[in-house]
Amino acid sequence: MARFVAFGEILLRLKPPGRERLFQSPMLEAIFGGAEANVAVSLACFGLDTEFVTAVPDNDVGAAAIAELRRFGVGTRGIVRRGERLGLYFLEAGADHRPSKVVYDRDGSSIATAPQDTFDWNALLDGAAWLHVSGITPALTESAAALTLAACRAAKARGVTVSCDCNYRGKLWRYGKRPVDVMPNLVQHVDLLIASREDCEKCLGIAPAAGAQTDEALTAAVLERFPKLTAVALTLRESQSADRGAWSACLRDAASFCMSRRYELANIVDRVGGGDAFAAGLIYGWQAYADRSRALEFAVAASCLKHSIPGDFNRASVAEVEGLVHGDASGRVQR
Amino acid sequence: MARFVAFGEILLRLKPPGRERLFQSPMLEAIFGGAEANVAVSLACFGLDTEFVTAVPDNDVGAAAIAELRRFGVGTRGIVRRGERLGLYFLEAGADHRPSKVVYDRDGSSIATAPQDTFDWNALLDGAAWLHVSGITPALTESAAALTLAACRAAKARGVTVSCDCNYRGKLWRYGKRPVDVMPNLVQHVDLLIASREDCEKCLGIAPAAGAQTDEALTAAVLERFPKLTAVALTLRESQSADRGAWSACLRDAASFCMSRRYELANIVDRVGGGDAFAAGLIYGWQAYADRSRALEFAVAASCLKHSIPGDFNRASVAEVEGLVHGDASGRVQR
Amino acid sequence: MARFVAFGEILLRLKPPGRERLFQSPMLEAIFGGAEANVAVSLACFGLDTEFVTAVPDNDVGAAAIAELRRFGVGTRGIVRRGERLGLYFLEAGADHRPSKVVYDRDGSSIATAPQDTFDWNALLDGAAWLHVSGITPALTESAAALTLAACRAAKARGVTVSCDCNYRGKLWRYGKRPVDVMPNLVQHVDLLIASREDCEKCLGIAPAAGAQTDEALTAAVLERFPKLTAVALTLRESQSADRGAWSACLRDAASFCMSRRYELANIVDRVGGGDAFAAGLIYGWQAYADRSRALEFAVAASCLKHSIPGDFNRASVAEVEGLVHGDASGRVQR
Amino acid sequence: MARFVAFGEILLRLKPPGRERLFQSPMLEAIFGGAEANVAVSLACFGLDTEFVTAVPDNDVGAAAIAELRRFGVGTRGIVRRGERLGLYFLEAGADHRPSKVVYDRDGSSIATAPQDTFDWNALLDGAAWLHVSGITPALTESAAALTLAACRAAKARGVTVSCDCNYRGKLWRYGKRPVDVMPNLVQHVDLLIASREDCEKCLGIAPAAGAQTDEALTAAVLERFPKLTAVALTLRESQSADRGAWSACLRDAASFCMSRRYELANIVDRVGGGDAFAAGLIYGWQAYADRSRALEFAVAASCLKHSIPGDFNRASVAEVEGLVHGDASGRVQR
Amino acid sequence: MARFVAFGEILLRLKPPGRERLFQSPMLEAIFGGAEANVAVSLACFGLDTEFVTAVPDNDVGAAAIAELRRFGVGTRGIVRRGERLGLYFLEAGADHRPSKVVYDRDGSSIATAPQDTFDWNALLDGAAWLHVSGITPALTESAAALTLAACRAAKARGVTVSCDCNYRGKLWRYGKRPVDVMPNLVQHVDLLIASREDCEKCLGIAPAAGAQTDEALTAAVLERFPKLTAVALTLRESQSADRGAWSACLRDAASFCMSRRYELANIVDRVGGGDAFAAGLIYGWQAYADRSRALEFAVAASCLKHSIPGDFNRASVAEVEGLVHGDASGRVQR
Amino acid sequence: MARFVAFGEILLRLKPPGRERLFQSPMLEAIFGGAEANVAVSLACFGLDTEFVTAVPDNDVGAAAIAELRRFGVGTRGIVRRGERLGLYFLEAGADHRPSKVVYDRDGSSIATAPQDTFDWNALLDGAAWLHVSGITPALTESAAALTLAACRAAKARGVTVSCDCNYRGKLWRYGKRPVDVMPNLVQHVDLLIASREDCEKCLGIAPAAGAQTDEALTAAVLERFPKLTAVALTLRESQSADRGAWSACLRDAASFCMSRRYELANIVDRVGGGDAFAAGLIYGWQAYADRSRALEFAVAASCLKHSIPGDFNRASVAEVEGLVHGDASGRVQR
Repeated sequence: MARFVAFGEILLRLKPPGRERLFQSPMLEAIFGGAEANVAVSLACFGLDTEFVTAVPDNDVGAAAIAELRRFGVGTRGIVRRGERLGLYFLEAGADHRPSKVVYDRDGSSIATAPQDTFDWNALLDGAAWLHVSGITPALTESAAALTLAACRAAKARGVTVSCDCNYRGKLWRYGKRPVDVMPNLVQHVDLLIASREDCEKCLGIAPAAGAQTDEALTAAVLERFPKLTAVALTLRESQSADRGAWSACLRDAASFCMSRRYELANIVDRVGGGDAFAAGLIYGWQAYADRSRALEFAVAASCLKHSIPGDFNRASVAEVEGLVHGDASGRVQR
Repeated sequence: MARFVAFGEILLRLKPPGRERLFQSPMLEAIFGGAEANVAVSLACFGLDTEFVTAVPDNDVGAAAIAELRRFGVGTRGIVRRGERLGLYFLEAGADHRPSKVVYDRDGSSIATAPQDTFDWNALLDGAAWLHVSGITPALTESAAALTLAACRAAKARGVTVSCDCNYRGKLWRYGKRPVDVMPNLVQHVDLLIASREDCEKCLGIAPAAGAQTDEALTAAVLERFPKLTAVALTLRESQSADRGAWSACLRDAASFCMSRRYELANIVDRVGGGDAFAAGLIYGWQAYADRSRALEFAVAASCLKHSIPGDFNRASVAEVEGLVHGDASGRVQR
Repeated sequence: MARFVAFGEILLRLKPPGRERLFQSPMLEAIFGGAEANVAVSLACFGLDTEFVTAVPDNDVGAAAIAELRRFGVGTRGIVRRGERLGLYFLEAGADHRPSKVVYDRDGSSIATAPQDTFDWNALLDGAAWLHVSGITPALTESAAALTLAACRAAKARGVTVSCDCNYRGKLWRYGKRPVDVMPNLVQHVDLLIASREDCEKCLGIAPAAGAQTDEALTAAVLERFPKLTAVALTLRESQSADRGAWSACLRDAASFCMSRRYELANIVDRVGGGDAFAAGLIYGWQAYADRSRALEFAVAASCLKHSIPGDFNRASVAEVEGLVHGDASGRVQR
Repeated sequence: MARFVAFGEILLRLKPPGRERLFQSPMLEAIFGGAEANVAVSLACFGLDTEFVTAVPDNDVGAAAIAELRRFGVGTRGIVRRGERLGLYFLEAGADHRPSKVVYDRDGSSIATAPQDTFDWNALLDGAAWLHVSGITPALTESAAALTLAACRAAKARGVTVSCDCNYRGKLWRYGKRPVDVMPNLVQHVDLLIASREDCEKCLGIAPAAGAQTDEALTAAVLERFPKLTAVALTLRESQSADRGAWSACLRDAASFCMSRRYELANIVDRVGGGDAFAAGLIYGWQAYADRSRALEFAVAASCLKHSIPGDFNRASVAEVEGLVHGDASGRVQR
Repeated sequence: MARFVAFGEILLRLKPPGRERLFQSPMLEAIFGGAEANVAVSLACFGLDTEFVTAVPDNDVGAAAIAELRRFGVGTRGIVRRGERLGLYFLEAGADHRPSKVVYDRDGSSIATAPQDTFDWNALLDGAAWLHVSGITPALTESAAALTLAACRAAKARGVTVSCDCNYRGKLWRYGKRPVDVMPNLVQHVDLLIASREDCEKCLGIAPAAGAQTDEALTAAVLERFPKLTAVALTLRESQSADRGAWSACLRDAASFCMSRRYELANIVDRVGGGDAFAAGLIYGWQAYADRSRALEFAVAASCLKHSIPGDFNRASVAEVEGLVHGDASGRVQR
Repeated sequence: MARFVAFGEILLRLKPPGRERLFQSPMLEAIFGGAEANVAVSLACFGLDTEFVTAVPDNDVGAAAIAELRRFGVGTRGIVRRGERLGLYFLEAGADHRPSKVVYDRDGSSIATAPQDTFDWNALLDGAAWLHVSGITPALTESAAALTLAACRAAKARGVTVSCDCNYRGKLWRYGKRPVDVMPNLVQHVDLLIASREDCEKCLGIAPAAGAQTDEALTAAVLERFPKLTAVALTLRESQSADRGAWSACLRDAASFCMSRRYELANIVDRVGGGDAFAAGLIYGWQAYADRSRALEFAVAASCLKHSIPGDFNRASVAEVEGLVHGDASGRVQR
């Protein structure tokens, strides 16, 4: 089985119980997450041979992050133990008119401070079929951006398919560069790009044209600007309140444009990781189905399911995602 | 006060916290439930003199099951201590597009392996007005089916009213017989039958006729097929997602057909036991109200309330159910 | 900065976990609340210099109540240690068709039994700009009613603005007087009155006229009846189920009548304290904005946010309330 | 089987988790206890037909207290629903040099305010073999003392054996009488008295004589002073720290004096209810064994086991207590 | 690195919180354990390349068991998905004079019912250096005993070192054979045997001789009786109460006898798995140290540390065990 | 009342439940602590007017730290909101032979990176009687050391008494200086020094002389080396295991040497903060008692009590500490 590699950061996530505000109770749920780690875990849950590449500190927190990845069957041989701390974030779950809230505490993390010779990409990509990165790691530090670029270049050079989720996070870009200074260069080495409308504008500088630009036009503009891309997936997340929204997406390649089914999300349990679940679903579908519109449907259904699962990770199986694709959303107890 | 007897199984129910998937946290909520025990507890909460008859092992798990029944005022003198284990089930609560999930672990339970002379029905039914059974116990083993049949026969012979909830569970019928091999024979001894449309087809072999068969026609077909029945209640559970649905039911006897009010369920807390709450509500209403349509309304409201209560048991009082029947669903804080 | 003083009771609130019924698990969430304390905490969270005046027992429970107020920055120098017990209440959170339920256990509390010389209002109101009371404390005992009246009189005499939330609680009025025997006298000393339609009828004896009396007419009637009032705010809480409802309000003074935006509440986390959050929002807005309709909008948005926060207290900042006023209810994660 | 009746109070017990101080976390363990209820539950756990007589309010708190008794098989038909509130107490578990701490909140409880005609002792004692009371209920109010006395008188008149545990609690005696004003009169109607050295002094006015009075002499003095007593048990609790101590007791009747084995308690989990476990053990042993020294050994072992069990109740079986009496304290896992 | 293989059962372990009795709270800690799995996890924590061979059901419970092993780095490719259920056990933690208590519920488990062709030992042992089994799996069923024997035979045939921990559990031997009918035959294929004194008697039929037989003599008797053994380790567990005891062991091979240091255990957190930690420590030490007495010291220290860790697994590193061996038991905070 | 000022860091402390290892469960207790904050909280619990001076980030984590201090009545006006993150540490509670373990994550904290003009010491010390610092903040960064020195200088210049707890933490000194390069200079400005034997060696370069140097000699050497000191307290912590140890201390000033009582600690609940509790006790005693040996006894008893309380803070009152000083360590329930 071909190997799938994700590169980026794994974070400790600290969240108060239920819908409480931060430190309302003297207790925090402590799990692991982070955009790229979320993709790796979901791919492993889909049964793919998956490896996660990152750096974590050589202490009990780093060891726990590795153990958690291992629990899902994610390969961890590519994880380097170095640096001083695991990045972490505090999450407060919103409700109704109160939005969820993230407080980042990732400065000085092992991956953010990793030098350029940290990873031996030739060895790490040996036998790999796919490399996934996101726009979050390049947002951390100049060196993390360079590491991401090096990974993509090495992959491209070996004929490994590269996917990238733009994942614009405005608060993270603080080292003096703007996303548009960095991301377009990275996208030169990408085959499958995932972006929201905001990502297109903030990371790629492709603002929606005035007035009623369609998704067809926007994705066409992306492919035109980045002709080496095989395809671009545009995620169409709608948000009505902290608990309610909808998910759909569209996919364009040179030959075609397709729009997915749209899922109403009426009771969101945890929206963090919803985009990562989409990315993993798309990667899985890309290699599992001949038909790219099926891959897209799989990805959207995977993301939809993620919203019902606590934590960053999409603990859903291929069978569960396909069950939803094929229409079983009745909610009857399965027994 | 006349005594109400339920016969069947009490199970240990193990569920992860909140909406988590199984074993996401190293903790399980551990309570007791099971279709027939649920009916007994609800009847006791309605103030009826109720007895539960089953077999549980002579260990701490069996003792805790008995203590829990006692807590609600259910009589436990008819419980025999025998066998090796209490059946149990794992429950994962779904959300939105992710359905709830049950993993049964009931093989070899005390009631499933109980020999035919375990219960002295003459003594157990002495002074009883009502016996309730369900189609779950007969699904376990040949001997459990025979025990259930013996209970119904003994009740019928003594003039005790017998109710049965068909409760089709496809995964449980594994001992070589199909429900249609067993349940029709049992229903011969029943006065009040409770069934869903699926139950009618799977347990009684009465499939909805092609196209648009009405509930009126289906219930008429049941009464025609089982002429000893006094009445049949058809439950009309609608499920839109793991959190949303609706409940209504209709009731037919020789003289009349009535359809209940329909309740929208917009925020289901725990749907397990919703059918059992209906059964208990119908039994309560049957003896409390001269008018059977009032009994039906009570039953549907009871089931509706159950969906808002965590656990298998319907911890609702007659006053609360009647409050809902008479229209107080405003949700204002009661103080 | 001018000082805001609230007078009334702080209670221990005991609630089972999640949506459980009382004592379903052997554990209770134990926090503090109570109408007037809720107003004080919200004012402090809005950054105002706030003081809470009450009596609590000289034991660990009273000490914890004071510590909790202090945590939010509420001044506690005006709290007298006396009496035998802190009042408490049990709260059961409803769901869907099952309403929430309060069991009061406040008899004999420190404030209910406090003698008339307990508080030195001249000292307590020195430097104060505002006094807030509610109709709950006067409901407890004759002496508590007299204490409340004395506070309002002292404030009025010093030129301190007085607000009062009628807060009718039928179950509390048990000492032989009806609210209409007590509250109108109190309102004589009030500048800003907050009431629901039910409050108008039960506390002020101003029943909605037959048929379709408008909110405009009702508030006009209140001002006519109590000419010393500067303004009256009428809260328009709608309740569809335990989880769903809507909030709006209107405000009338001598010169104008304005109606607020109406917020749908589709997933209520905790509705207790929603009215108190409105009162605090109105007091805050009254002094922060020249425009009273802006004050009203702030108050309604504050109340709306409170419904998403567990506990009695509205742990929301001015920035968060203004965010909602200005339309950010998209529910996207804030990161 | 003869019936055992205990009369007194059942309380709600609120305790922070583990060794935390009160309100360190916003959560309290909420269980039920109280000296006389503890005796009833332990007797029921020993398999005796036990009834508890008290008054509890007609609300959800009272209902939960009854349900909890029922769970252990204690009969609750003699419980009257009346009054305003269930008494409660806050418990903070000490550790090492920090003693445990109790904050009572029992004023105005249903039993403390119950009028003299609340209980029909003729009916309640019909068929009873034993009545147990304690010195705690008489400490609450004059009426509660009178109720206790009436119970003992009625029992004595019917030939029912009466036991009383003096249970001196200095903080509770606040209604104007001292224990020595009340308890000696009560003890006139008692057959089996249980007391500590402090109880003898504070409740009976029998102070240890100067210097080295022996337990033999003290118990002799008690029997001399109260000649109607059949026997007196003197509990000899030693306390070295919050976690460590020792238990032993001696028993004197007209014919003999015996001293029990002494148990070191090296890791006390919960010392509340240890004395009640002794009382229940003595009552059980009194009727189960011909030899009173065996009864005493059973009682001391029961109390010793209680110290290892969280909560007020002694959830230990006869087999477990006898196991300890017969020397199995090895601590090996029982499997 | 050579591979270490353990064969046996992994169980779900259900335990009430803290020192509570079973079902005192409606919550159970749900983790995984079982003698042989415990050895595998400890070996993986020591950094060895470890594989666990067993059968688990093809459901979510079986999947969680595998994920948990993976988390610690244990290889799970040798785990066969078959059968109906994962065995489980309930554990109640004792305290002081109350011993811990295990209620088994392992009947009909996947491994207990596995047919003889379930495992391909040639493949599983390919490249392996060590096989560990215990006397627990042979206690379950005749087929499980045969599977264990087959594993040992296959290992021996390939020159793989075989260790066996006798682990006598009287309650498990219920299929008609006694340990002495089965274990001696198994031990013929073992190189390193681990046994307690009770194991020697119950499993091997080697009762301590009358009077004061020494450990030297007993181990010599074992080696004499089973001449193919390289060595036998005798565990010397002392138990004073549920919380206190001591651990030491001795080791005999053809050439020498050595006795370990003895550790006082003054505050046992969890004694389950203490013996398995010893076994894993001995296996680790056997291959890590030239000197067998060092291996023994490592094993005893590992077991000692395990008693301070909640759960079945010994989550201790080589560095931590060696730290204890070399005398750092001061208990100062490591910072 | 004179004001007491402490300067240093407040940290978020993350600890797994009970005796679990880090990340054994996906939950962390999240409270606040840190050596100097601990002293401030304890002083406030003793009823002193206390102010804590530090820098915390302007986010929800910093806000919660301030709220927690406020809860205990600590003044927080001197806290500056700046920088990127609150320092934190992970704590694993040991047991028996397994020591507790701290993993620091304090790099880049608000106080560690604060520039020299962050605090206006003239304003902060206005009206102050006492300043307390520790050797932990100087260990963080060169700037933090300079801030501490500036604080001490400013205090000294104003005649404010200065105390310092050396608090050697080897792992923290990583910025290129050794404690002996920094601390002696700081101690020049100190009146009351607190140190352990290790502190004397590592921070002051005063190694115990060869062989049997007495505590008298060591403290004399400290006073000789730092003649501006009024007194030095030497803490004599003994540690036998993670749960057991002993506490005593001695105090030397120009005129006298006194040795405290020694407390056995047989069941340590939480040893973190034990030294800080001593420091606070000594500061309290210094101003409350004329007799310095009484101050020392108070300090040692305070530290002893702290070991029984979960969390960093010593939530003990003066009455409780004095209770222990005067000999009430019986452990009887206080009711």
